[in-house]
Amino acid sequence: MVNFKIDNPTTVHFGKDVMNELGKTVALYGKKVMLVYGKGSIKSNGIYDITISQLNSFGAEVVEFSGIKPNPLVDDVNEAAELGRKEKVDVILAVGGGSVIDSAKVIAVSIPMQTSAWRVMIKLDTPKKAIPLVAVLTLAATGTEMNPFAVLQNEEANKKIGFGHRLMYPKHSFLDPQNTFSVSKNYTAYGIVDLMAHCMENYFGKGEATLSDRFVFSILNEAVAYGPKLLSNLQDYDLRAKIMYAATMALNGLTAYGRESGDWGVHDIGHTLSVLFDTPHGASLSVGYPAWLKVLKERMPDRIAELGNAVFDVKTADETIASLEHFFKSVGSPISLKEAGISSEKKPLILDTMIKNKVRGGNYKLSEEDLKLLVDYMDQN
Amino acid sequence: MVNFKIDNPTTVHFGKDVMNELGKTVALYGKKVMLVYGKGSIKSNGIYDITISQLNSFGAEVVEFSGIKPNPLVDDVNEAAELGRKEKVDVILAVGGGSVIDSAKVIAVSIPMQTSAWRVMIKLDTPKKAIPLVAVLTLAATGTEMNPFAVLQNEEANKKIGFGHRLMYPKHSFLDPQNTFSVSKNYTAYGIVDLMAHCMENYFGKGEATLSDRFVFSILNEAVAYGPKLLSNLQDYDLRAKIMYAATMALNGLTAYGRESGDWGVHDIGHTLSVLFDTPHGASLSVGYPAWLKVLKERMPDRIAELGNAVFDVKTADETIASLEHFFKSVGSPISLKEAGISSEKKPLILDTMIKNKVRGGNYKLSEEDLKLLVDYMDQN
Repeated sequence: MVNFKIDNPTTVHFGKDVMNELGKTVALYGKKVMLVYGKGSIKSNGIYDITISQLNSFGAEVVEFSGIKPNPLVDDVNEAAELGRKEKVDVILAVGGGSVIDSAKVIAVSIPMQTSAWRVMIKLDTPKKAIPLVAVLTLAATGTEMNPFAVLQNEEANKKIGFGHRLMYPKHSFLDPQNTFSVSKNYTAYGIVDLMAHCMENYFGKGEATLSDRFVFSILNEAVAYGPKLLSNLQDYDLRAKIMYAATMALNGLTAYGRESGDWGVHDIGHTLSVLFDTPHGASLSVGYPAWLKVLKERMPDRIAELGNAVFDVKTADETIASLEHFFKSVGSPISLKEAGISSEKKPLILDTMIKNKVRGGNYKLSEEDLKLLVDYMDQN
Repeated sequence: MVNFKIDNPTTVHFGKDVMNELGKTVALYGKKVMLVYGKGSIKSNGIYDITISQLNSFGAEVVEFSGIKPNPLVDDVNEAAELGRKEKVDVILAVGGGSVIDSAKVIAVSIPMQTSAWRVMIKLDTPKKAIPLVAVLTLAATGTEMNPFAVLQNEEANKKIGFGHRLMYPKHSFLDPQNTFSVSKNYTAYGIVDLMAHCMENYFGKGEATLSDRFVFSILNEAVAYGPKLLSNLQDYDLRAKIMYAATMALNGLTAYGRESGDWGVHDIGHTLSVLFDTPHGASLSVGYPAWLKVLKERMPDRIAELGNAVFDVKTADETIASLEHFFKSVGSPISLKEAGISSEKKPLILDTMIKNKVRGGNYKLSEEDLKLLVDYMDQN
């Protein structure tokens, strides 16, 4: 176990009707509120109205920035930061899923800086302070609600990358499972895949951390036990709550404490598919993970089998990979390029982009030969 | 799952030589430091010297209060608070196990109040502010390092009770597993029992919280897997680290989120033994738990069996209880009054004290008839 710090400053308000406390919480940080959201689904499902009524309750002056895309773009973040600077906002309220909250995190640190968000993402400029951020989560998936990470896409550079900074933790996150009732079956499944992938990225990272491994298995087992039930009962409060809570715990530190680092190779693989084909994040991971495991199974057969044993009650690495594929397929998330709507003809483009973007992974390093094999595996099934 | 908040403000510094950061951390809160510790074991194992050298590094003015007892007394807390008021201390540095840190928490909130600590504990007076508290943990057991709870004993009232308040979280806790190297085999075992009991108190609490149950099983499995190994290798850094981390996670919220409440009946039973016979806290719990489970096994056979299945790979409630007894015995913690050095003749006194102190438990309520049966079970084995 390596040294670590537990120091997560986000307050999570979890449960039914926690939105009732949103207004007084945002009011702690000021009156001028920048409301950030996506393409407007919050207007059709009622969350926008609840939010505005909470903001009205303390006479907030609201500046809206909407239109954040599911694979969020750095250009939108720059535009929002410019608006925030001009309007001198006191606090940012992000209402949405990972893309909206990730964007808001980078907006929050970019506003005080006279620079582009991409320079922040690629670590050329370092955040010094941040506009306080409050988040309302509407999609259980990325864990962004209780961590300091953000992933943005740069269309110009054909890149999607992650960045984290302590100033990027939300001050408060509101997690009402009811706010995820209207998430479609597909996106609910992608969220389940995403949270499972976060557990595995940490599990396959560097360094022994046995209790963190057990927490990984706990969260994976929860997802496997209740994910499929939720997909048959999208309006079930308790099932929504279980998956929402599992997604938060999958990437708030709990699965990582005591490790040197996670691997995150599959996320980089997935980002490549997203940037090229706009593949939803979770869908890109269910394509990438089985292929990644197949490439690496001879380098870590026991590690893979241990996970399979704890989660799927199987014995070998091969059975683990097959179980994972079976599970992803059963929830309706693609496990091949074809199922993700990507033609075999795109294989050279995928490989070239992965090589150009230096997709390697942090622990089990992938060579170009490995990447070629990986693309072939993604094209099977 | 019921509504809950995740909001733990303690920063945990975990790992080898984290003491190197102690001085600059304490310095954040001021120069006048009240150093609280126990009966002086920190002087023989070197932790005192390291602490003083860290305090000297920023020219701290140190006021010492030592002599906190393993079952900490409210009188000592009153005396320390009086000293802290007189000396106008800026910050409290507690160096020790649960008793020292618990005492320091109550000292921290009592200093600004013109009242006795017992009135705080029995909720007659409410804390309004607190002197900042930094903790150095020297015993893996109670979880006090990352929670807002304290347990104190009132000799006059023959009572040992718990109290918690948000102001009682340590600001920082330093967990260097090396600081537990000199803990004796017995007390190491009692710590393992204690952390397991915290998991079970939450598990047998009110309300369904499936992921929290899985976290309970994770921590119990970690304790069962590595506790016995540690007892054969008391100087093994990694084993000390595993148990220290497990103890922190057992009672920092993780095993409780989404439940209405824990049960805590066995803690009240254990406190009765401690207050009457000065039984070490962990030892009192290994006597109490099997008896408590025997009293209640017909009211929750499946719940007990589920735990046994997850932790000991057994099927029934009876087998679970037997496995737990076997485990406690194997680590050298008593499972009967006799093994705890308490004569059968004391049974009426124990029963009377439990009735007088209203020992009932929070979820599975114990009647006087149950308590009588429980005392009989504690007298078996």
